[in-house]
Amino acid sequence: MSVITISREFGSGGRSIGEKLANELGISFYDRAIIQMAAEKSGLSPGYIERSEESIPSPFLLNLNYTAYSSFDPMNHFETSMNDKVFQAQFAVITEVASEGNCVIVGRCADYILRNEPKLCRVFVHADMPDRIKRAAETYPLSEDKLEDRIRKIDKSRANYYKYYTNQAWSDMRNYDLIINTSHAGIDGAVDAVKALIHSINSRL
Amino acid sequence: MSVITISREFGSGGRSIGEKLANELGISFYDRAIIQMAAEKSGLSPGYIERSEESIPSPFLLNLNYTAYSSFDPMNHFETSMNDKVFQAQFAVITEVASEGNCVIVGRCADYILRNEPKLCRVFVHADMPDRIKRAAETYPLSEDKLEDRIRKIDKSRANYYKYYTNQAWSDMRNYDLIINTSHAGIDGAVDAVKALIHSINSRL
Repeated sequence: MSVITISREFGSGGRSIGEKLANELGISFYDRAIIQMAAEKSGLSPGYIERSEESIPSPFLLNLNYTAYSSFDPMNHFETSMNDKVFQAQFAVITEVASEGNCVIVGRCADYILRNEPKLCRVFVHADMPDRIKRAAETYPLSEDKLEDRIRKIDKSRANYYKYYTNQAWSDMRNYDLIINTSHAGIDGAVDAVKALIHSINSRL
Repeated sequence: MSVITISREFGSGGRSIGEKLANELGISFYDRAIIQMAAEKSGLSPGYIERSEESIPSPFLLNLNYTAYSSFDPMNHFETSMNDKVFQAQFAVITEVASEGNCVIVGRCADYILRNEPKLCRVFVHADMPDRIKRAAETYPLSEDKLEDRIRKIDKSRANYYKYYTNQAWSDMRNYDLIINTSHAGIDGAVDAVKALIHSINSRL
């Protein structure tokens, strides 16, 4: 069996794929549960952890901060070290659940954190924008334009978070074993493709 | 059934995956055959067509050519128009074989040429460098360093060719339905993942 990590664009259906995979394979599924577990481990509140994931500054701003404006800003420093504390707590939880056995983990740089795990299958899920807008509309009662803005903003914060903690590009295909566009494949097609890959990886190890 | 296009990094095993898929699905396989067919269509020699694929200048050089050195160079212009003739001949062959029915087509911007085909599955195959060097060593009796140079050079010419004729980035995940790293999945895993996806796409259309 395997540890499957799912990185996903907002509105691509990555979470549904992860849940379905976990169900069909009869293994554990971790998405928001990581937040709860990291809260228990760190003493931080789940709400704080969640907001922290979205507050990582862009690499451009970080650069400005560290080079052009090199004067020390204690409040900014506090934010950064709290963000790092959140990451460390999630890191510990992800390493722990992966060591306990087969599971699916969504987001949170799990592909990077577990990169040396031999039975790892790193999946990235994306989709065409019109399909992402349609999917996001099921959750948020916003206009199409607003939904597209929101999608781009959330993707950007995921990419920043990933870049900040892994020093890799979130959308670089080299970081994944399987990348699927659900616009064409659908959720079931994606689930089947991952299962086919897992089956083959397991039969070779 | 479907038309499957396979774009592939040199040494990633993309060609083997294409052949195996075509065999297992009982459909036609087009790789170098496109060159022969384009030669017959255009009156150009197969050798010329093959060399032309590698002679597209990089976008950087093209820019220099068109902007900084804007004086007209007839020899360079001749090369460019002959390259375009080769592309047009391959374009016609690819459109024709795809219209005839289910098939696997390797390389030659087929994913872009056929992008409006509804039953299209656009696959990109990549692999980690050590595995690509190992695979290339089966064909070329060169040192590891030389093989890596050759791999990077061939990839670069494929990326340039793709960029020149599609105005898209060869390594942009958005251009593909399924992207597989064969270092982890193996050839069989990749074949199975594509088959699972095709099966799902067909059952939805």
